[in-house]
Parts: sequence; C-alpha cells; structure tokens
Amino acid sequence: MWPTLVYFLLAISCAVSIDEYENVINERHDLLQRELDMMLGNEITFSDSEIKANEIVMHLKAKELDRAYRSPYAYNFTRHFFEYKDAVKQSPLYEIIKKMPKGAILHAHDVGLLSPDYVLNMTYWDNLYVCFEEDNMQLIFSDKTPKVTCGTQWQLLRDARYTSIDVEEFDAELRKHFTLLVDEPHEVYFDVNSAWNRFQQYFITTGPMFCYKLAWEQYFYDTLKAVREDNVMYIEIRSTLPPLYDLNGEVYDSIATAESYKKVVDQFVKDYPDFYGAKLIYAPMRLVDAATVKEYIKIAKEIKRRMPDFFAGFDLVGQEDLGTPTKEFLSELVAAKDELDYFFHAGETNWNGMSSDENLFDVIALETRRIGHAFALVKHPLLLEEVKKRGIALEVNVISNVVLKLVGDVRNHPLATFLAQNVPVVLSSDDPGVWEADPLSHDFFITFMGVASRHADLKLLKQLALNSLYFSTIKDKDRVVHEFEIRWTKFIDSLVRDKW
Amino acid sequence: MWPTLVYFLLAISCAVSIDEYENVINERHDLLQRELDMMLGNEITFSDSEIKANEIVMHLKAKELDRAYRSPYAYNFTRHFFEYKDAVKQSPLYEIIKKMPKGAILHAHDVGLLSPDYVLNMTYWDNLYVCFEEDNMQLIFSDKTPKVTCGTQWQLLRDARYTSIDVEEFDAELRKHFTLLVDEPHEVYFDVNSAWNRFQQYFITTGPMFCYKLAWEQYFYDTLKAVREDNVMYIEIRSTLPPLYDLNGEVYDSIATAESYKKVVDQFVKDYPDFYGAKLIYAPMRLVDAATVKEYIKIAKEIKRRMPDFFAGFDLVGQEDLGTPTKEFLSELVAAKDELDYFFHAGETNWNGMSSDENLFDVIALETRRIGHAFALVKHPLLLEEVKKRGIALEVNVISNVVLKLVGDVRNHPLATFLAQNVPVVLSSDDPGVWEADPLSHDFFITFMGVASRHADLKLLKQLALNSLYFSTIKDKDRVVHEFEIRWTKFIDSLVRDKW
Ligand SMILES: [Zn+2]
Ligand SMILES: [Zn+2]
Repeated sequence: MWPTLVYFLLAISCAVSIDEYENVINERHDLLQRELDMMLGNEITFSDSEIKANEIVMHLKAKELDRAYRSPYAYNFTRHFFEYKDAVKQSPLYEIIKKMPKGAILHAHDVGLLSPDYVLNMTYWDNLYVCFEEDNMQLIFSDKTPKVTCGTQWQLLRDARYTSIDVEEFDAELRKHFTLLVDEPHEVYFDVNSAWNRFQQYFITTGPMFCYKLAWEQYFYDTLKAVREDNVMYIEIRSTLPPLYDLNGEVYDSIATAESYKKVVDQFVKDYPDFYGAKLIYAPMRLVDAATVKEYIKIAKEIKRRMPDFFAGFDLVGQEDLGTPTKEFLSELVAAKDELDYFFHAGETNWNGMSSDENLFDVIALETRRIGHAFALVKHPLLLEEVKKRGIALEVNVISNVVLKLVGDVRNHPLATFLAQNVPVVLSSDDPGVWEADPLSHDFFITFMGVASRHADLKLLKQLALNSLYFSTIKDKDRVVHEFEIRWTKFIDSLVRDKW
Repeated sequence: MWPTLVYFLLAISCAVSIDEYENVINERHDLLQRELDMMLGNEITFSDSEIKANEIVMHLKAKELDRAYRSPYAYNFTRHFFEYKDAVKQSPLYEIIKKMPKGAILHAHDVGLLSPDYVLNMTYWDNLYVCFEEDNMQLIFSDKTPKVTCGTQWQLLRDARYTSIDVEEFDAELRKHFTLLVDEPHEVYFDVNSAWNRFQQYFITTGPMFCYKLAWEQYFYDTLKAVREDNVMYIEIRSTLPPLYDLNGEVYDSIATAESYKKVVDQFVKDYPDFYGAKLIYAPMRLVDAATVKEYIKIAKEIKRRMPDFFAGFDLVGQEDLGTPTKEFLSELVAAKDELDYFFHAGETNWNGMSSDENLFDVIALETRRIGHAFALVKHPLLLEEVKKRGIALEVNVISNVVLKLVGDVRNHPLATFLAQNVPVVLSSDDPGVWEADPLSHDFFITFMGVASRHADLKLLKQLALNSLYFSTIKDKDRVVHEFEIRWTKFIDSLVRDKW
C-alpha cells in the first residue's frame, strides 16, 4: 500500500511541476510573440519571394550581430559613428540596403546633403575668392575682388592653391572645413553645444560659396542625383531660402531661391523621368523674434501662391535648446495654420521639461503634419499616444542625433521604442554630407542593425520605406506607391537570385 | 455700405482667430497638465509645510538647471559622471538630498559599497600579504606566507609599504586598484565590455582580502554605518556568499558567510536601534551551467530554512551579455519558484532582441518580485504594461549604468520614460563605492537633476523613497513607513526652517 501511495504522490508533484514548467515556457513565448506582433511592419504580409529574401537578410543579420554581441568587432556601437562608419561598408547587408528602394527622404536640409569631396570640387570652379583669417576662412564667388570685409586679404582660390607649397595638403586642409569628421570625436564634440558650434561653422563657411546662383542650382541638381543613386525616389527638402547672388554682385530674394529650386527639379525630372520629384519646406532660422516669424510666414504664403505644387509647408530650424521656444510664436503660427502645412522640428534635445522639450506640446497643438526628430518624445507617454492617434509621423535621423551628440550609443536611440510600439516613423538623414554618410543608406543600415530588434526583418525595412511615401505630401500617392511596389519586387527578385 | 461690410468681415475673422488661438493655448496646457498628472509621485498630497519646502527645492532646481541649460557648467551631463561627480557636491540641492530620508537600498552588492579610501585603510591591517605581478596584484590575509601561487613573491604589505621610496605614492598606486575612477573615462572605458573588465578586476583583486572573515564582517558593519549615515534606514544586500577564511587558513562555506552577515546585522541594529536592518538576496554568478544553478538553489533553500527572517530571495549576477541566458536555467528556476522569491537582474544591456535583452521575458514569466536594472525594458511596450499590472518594481541604478557604459548622457536613461508613466521604480546604487559615489545620495541627485523632468518635484523624491519601502521584503511595513513619515516630517520642517 505505501509504495503505491508514494508513487502516486510523486506522480502528482511531478505532473504539477511539468505543468508549471509548460506554463512558464508558454507565457514567455506568448509575451515575446505578442510583442513582435506590435512592431512597426507587422501589418505587412510577405510574398513567397519576400519570404526567401527575408531568410537571406536575416541570416546575414544574425551572423553579423551575433559576432558583435559576444566579441564586438565592426559594430561596437558604444563608439562614435565616425569610428565604425567605414566598417559598415564591409557588410553585405549594407550593400543590400543600398540597393533597396527606400522611398522618400522627408527630412533633409538643402546644403548638407553632399560630401566634403563634392564641396572641395566646387572650390575648383572659376571666380572663387578666398579670405584666410585666423581659425576662419571665407569663400565667395565674384567677377572682381569681393567687397566683403576680410581680416587679411581676398585672393582667388585658384591662386592660393597653386602658390601653396603642396596642393594635396592645401586641399586636405580645405576639406576639413567641409566635414565634421575628426579622429577624436569624443574630445572634439564633448556635448551638444560643442557639436552644434562646429556644425554651424560648416554652414557659415560654405554658405556664401553655395549662394552663388549657379553653384546653388548645381548643388541641388547633384543632390537629386545622389539621392536618386541611393535608391530614393522623392525628396522634401528644407531650406532657409537664403538670397542668391550673381558674379556681378546682383542679389535676389528668397522667392527667387525657391524658383531656382523649382526650375532645377523640373529639369532633373525631365532628365531622369524615373525620379518622382521634390517639394520644398520653407524652414528659416528659429533664433528670431515674433515679428520676423510674421515676415517668414508672409514669404511662405507668397511661395505657396506662386508654386502651389512645389511648396509643401513651413518649419523653423536651428539648435532648439538655444533658439526661441515655439510658444513665443504661437500667435503668428496659429494665425497661419489654416493656410500653411507645418512640419516642425521639435524635441531635438535631451533636456526634460525645458522649452526645447516642450516645443513638442506646441507643435502638436499646432497640428503639425510631421515632427522633425521628436527625440524627446519617448519621455512623453501622452504625446506618444496623441501622435499615434493623430497620425503625425516622426522624422527620425539617427546618425544626425549621434553626430550632434544627443545620443552616444545608437542602441539607446528612442527610435527603438518607437519601432517597438509601431509609432508612425519615417527614417531620414538630416545633413548626411556633413558627416560623410550616404543620402539615406547609412541611416537605414544603422537603424536595422543597431537600433531595431534583432528580430526586426524585411517587414520593418519595407514599412519604413512605405511610410516615407504615405507621410509625404505627394499628391498622387497611389501612383508612387504602385511604382515603389514594382521596384521593390525587382529588388526582392534580384536579392533571391544573387548569391549572398 | 462697403466700409461696414469690411469691418464686419474683419470682426468675424478676428474673432475666429482669437478663438483658434485660445484653443491651441488650451490644448497645449491641457496636454502638459495631463502628462504631469501621470508622473511617478502624482498620488502624493502635500502638507502645508511640504508646499513650502517644495518651493525652496524647486527654486533651487530651476536656478541650477536653467543655468546649465543655456550655458552648461557643472551639469554638462553629456560628459562622463566622473567629470561632474564632484561639482555636484557644490549644489545646495545635493546637501538637501543627502539629509533627506531616502528609505531603503534594494539593489546593492555587498563588497562594492565602500569607497577606495576605506579599502585602502584596510590594507593597513596586520597580517595582510601582497604579491605584485605584472599588471596585477594579489592581496590575502594570513598568519604566515600564503601558499597561493604568486608570479613573484609574497611579502607583508606593511613591509612593501615601508620599504617603498614614497609611502604616499605607494598608497596612491594601491588605491587605483580600488576604484574605477580615471582621468580619461571615454578612452579607458570605450564600451560595455572594457568597463566590465575593469569592474570585475576590482572584485578579483579585493575579493581575497575581503574574504578574511574579520575583514568581511567589519566591511559589512561599516557598510551599514555608511548607509545609515546617508539617511537610508534599511538595505537588501546581494551577495555571492563566497567562502570566508581565517588567518590560519581555515575555510568556511556559503552558509557560514550568510551567518556572518546575520550576526553583523543583529549587532548593528543593537548598536544603532534607529536602523531597520538588512536582508540577504543570495545572488551567485550567472556564468555557470544548469547543474550549478541547481546547487545554488539548494544553498538558497538551506539559508532560507536556517534564517527565514534574514533571507529575502534569490538572483543571479554577472555581465548579462556574456553570461548564460536565464532561459537555460528555466527548468531549475521554475522548480524552485514556489519556495524562493526571485529578484532577478534582467535587461542590463543595450542590445535589442539578444538573450540578455530577452532575460526580461524569462524573469517576468518566473514571477520575479523585482527586476534589477531592466534597462532594456523601455524597448518592450508589452512588458512595460505587464510590469505595471503585476506590480513588479524596477531597481534602477543610473550611475552604475553610466559607469558600466550602458548609457553616456544620463538624460537618455530610460528611467526618464519610466518616471513619466509611473512605472513602479526604486532607485538604487549597485556598487557605489567602486565609482566613489555615496551609498544612495548621488543616485537620487542625478535622477532628480539629470533624468527626471524639470517639473518633477518633492513628490517624486518622496514617492521614490516610499517605493523602496513598499517594494522591499520588510515584514512590518506599516511600522517602517510610519517611522519614515516621522523622519520625513522632521526633514521637511528643518528644510523650511533653514535658510537656503
Ligand atoms: Zn533637421
Ligand atoms: Zn547589480
């Protein structure tokens, strides 16, 4: 009798234990699965080819990440982007992402898209004058010695270059003005302000050169070319619309600058009919007073009146922490909100509860259509819900946030949280030329490998590309999305066909 | 007729515009207020004295933060904690937070709580032998030359010190082994692994010295003293329970180590009856196999059987990225889960979708009572909901996460998100001695100034202190909370009385 009872009791306790184990295992699995189902991209259903392509992609991703996980090599994301930016190019996944149709660039600034090599080439143009001052350099195009103040003296850049001891060295020094790349990024850029100082210096130095009307138009044409070559089909470009000038010193106004853009886009689309064009977001500097914003708005309305199909909307730019808080302009911005679409930068800060952070409240109340950066949004659970509810897209620029020192390790970028809960996100690149990144591929790659979950797959990439079209101001979205789908299918087919 | 119509139309459009302006202003205000009401601490109602004390605190906070916001001085949080750690001590708010009753420390490791100066002092004890090897140093207490292997030769540390050319220099060199502080933290600690290497080296070097039974007991007694002096009333201490030894080489077992702890606590509470004691979380190393975990669990159960009031529960420690994933031990941990309370470290990683990240799923399925760190939880919206629903507290250690390179700028710490949405959080300090921080005050200060919103006030601080009692394993919580309230009221009264 006893042994049977013992056996019986054992069987019960054993059974209970197995049950408990099963329960825990099931719960773990269930939680994980439910969370994966919440992720951005979950609504996409794969075709058979996509399933195969996804296997290729996920195999490569797992291999590279697992190697980095146990003994970091190329992807030591705690290091600065500048330190692994080139290592990234060794990855077959990078190659795949370059080839992938990525939809649109919705957040980029007009004179920050091309590489320092491109800018250096421009210094070979005729009629470029240079003024070397202590720690400073001015560049300007002119058919005679410029009248702009120079601490030393103006000379033709061509003369300076060919009377220098070493042209290669001369150009290398010049190039440093056209990039933020340095060897010791942690020392040089020790906080947001020090990074922004260098960043603004880039625009101060190159601005007067780019503002030569022919240079400006050429730069934009070549921007569109670079964007198209990175497999992007459309761009909404932000511009402060600075006055342009001619060699003889004639100066034009902001509206003329917008017209230049429109002319270039029309020409480009004629030259490359597979490109779906560009629109303009007028985005002047925010470090101004309300009266100036009122002037800005007048200009915006005038551009919209003259070029209704080219004009997308209005924004304000510049370092938010040091700029004027959006709430100072509320009255002006409310007055114009029925006439202008807003695409405000907001929350590009790591401060919490400061005016830069609370710009987020203003722009949402102002019914902005998208938010530039929204880095601080992760600390605002209510706003995060509102953004989802209202379908406001976040224009996230991961590498920009690293270079401008908002975040060190990309794995801590709030985008990871946004992706996990399917917040409407579009990936963009801000000023990729200034940090020597591709127009969009680096941002996609870093997001895929460094920010998103190891489980995030082609669905995420496709949805991000699609989002950039959905949340654009393109009129005929169906046509563009259809065209995107055709290119995507081609891309998938070639991915499955190629050996990886 | 015309003028009247124009005037009428103007009046309408003006009225509409004012309405719209009011709407936007109201919405902005409403969103902001609703979010402030969601924050951790929102349930607290202030007394009249607390209102006054809060005004003092918030005035100081605003002054210091606003100064840092526009032109960063002491609080350049993008820099490493080591670079502003001492500047912090200049702040009157730091002084206030030191004096503030902070409740309990619920996440700290036994031999990482005291400063390098304390450890250096211990090297002045009799019978301490040292072995200097290349890049390495061994320390051990013994009444004769130790038999432990030494690449050079064992000598009494006293002899080494007094035959050195310069005792001050000798001690300064020695001290470097007892701290992670360095001048160039970004260079020395360039990622999680390099920081953990140095961190583990601290334990490897000091361990054999601390494990001398008398040293061990003294260290713990003095830990309790330091904790009490930092206005903490209770601690739950994690220990790997290493075997201790006597001068003559006799070695004891883990259970004896636990008994040593219990003896010290009993003595300390007798000496300082205003301290509410300590409990033990047995937390051995995770880089082991399942069979070893089974042994661990046996030891845990035995300690619980012998010291049911002193034993709090079970955990596993060590770098999660390189350690064994929790899921490998699921079967053992499920089997013991009805007998042991769990307080697992989990998600102390910035990887996303790797095993260290997914330990979070395991420990929640295992019904852990609290989670150590949970740094990665912010990327798991579903788990975040579960944690709230199930009342699992997160033991957050901000400074630890900075020093061990999970996050650079404290303003990017996920704790900001946890606080904003009232996730159950307790603040703790992990191993504050190793990075020369106070037992708890630095973590409270940095959280208040660097992580939480500028709007977060005394309510947040009080709630965090209260949480540490609510989520502890203290039996008689009402009594302890009551005592806390008395101390809190005294603190508030003195705050209002003093000049700030
Ligand atoms: Zn931007
Ligand atoms: Zn710990």
